[in-house]
Amino acid sequence: METKGLLMVFTGTGKGKTTAALGMALRASGHGLPVCVIQFIKGNWRYGELDALPKLGVELHTMGRGFTWKSDNLDEDRRLALEGWNFARERMGSGRYHMIILDEFTYLLHYRMLDLAPCLETLAQRDPALHLVITGRYAPEPLIELADLVTEMQAVKHPLQQGIKAQRGVEF
Amino acid sequence: METKGLLMVFTGTGKGKTTAALGMALRASGHGLPVCVIQFIKGNWRYGELDALPKLGVELHTMGRGFTWKSDNLDEDRRLALEGWNFARERMGSGRYHMIILDEFTYLLHYRMLDLAPCLETLAQRDPALHLVITGRYAPEPLIELADLVTEMQAVKHPLQQGIKAQRGVEF
Repeated sequence: METKGLLMVFTGTGKGKTTAALGMALRASGHGLPVCVIQFIKGNWRYGELDALPKLGVELHTMGRGFTWKSDNLDEDRRLALEGWNFARERMGSGRYHMIILDEFTYLLHYRMLDLAPCLETLAQRDPALHLVITGRYAPEPLIELADLVTEMQAVKHPLQQGIKAQRGVEF
Repeated sequence: METKGLLMVFTGTGKGKTTAALGMALRASGHGLPVCVIQFIKGNWRYGELDALPKLGVELHTMGRGFTWKSDNLDEDRRLALEGWNFARERMGSGRYHMIILDEFTYLLHYRMLDLAPCLETLAQRDPALHLVITGRYAPEPLIELADLVTEMQAVKHPLQQGIKAQRGVEF
């Protein structure tokens, strides 16, 4: 049995991917361990976590202002994706963190806004003590192969399917 | 589209059930909404969350001191289960919370330490504004039917399968 930094992936179409990552941040910060959360997609929203994480001493960075991966300006999306990834790489190389969370990062790979092979190489060659958590739908198979822990969140039931709208303090 | 308190279930054998519930607590508390977490199984452990939740103003209660559902004293297990459930019911009826999390509660149902039918009736007849989050493996089918949102966490890969031991700030 060995101890090492884990690459953890929460993927699938069900609810709970980002929330599980936030729970990891909460847990690690409860031990006084430094955590950095980098949001790749949801940055435009005012989630409850934006207020709660700093109270726990968790660093939170929002990448891709306006970056929606639905834009009709693909060059601009790619530029923002690369900018976000370069920021994440810098943090990963800083040696300052116990855990880094790349929230919704899988979309950048799935939609080919970043080149997969060099990304995976960077993830694989990171500081061996650093724990990484990556969330988002459609985790590419090579990322799953590289990961130490992968959970697929499967939607058995979803309230939006039942005519109940998203609610403050629950879904955001 | 209506707004109502949701019954949310995180089940399955994969990692991320309790962590997703903790993320829900973090998110709601970030909005200043009162949250109560009741741990039914893991109370003997010193998780990072035990330190982090109070910083967010989240109430945390540990039920079933010594309650392991592996005991050879089934009567004592049942007594503790009922005690925990009565506590949870009292909190659910208090009108004080936006969200209540019943962590690892499914085991009490799966292992028949509580009678399923009256439990489900209490859950169904709760304050309609109250959000409930229930976690644990083996969520019984009638609970899934009653729930508004159900995610099954499926283990695609688990580090314990790969000879890496549980680590502070990650798994506890």
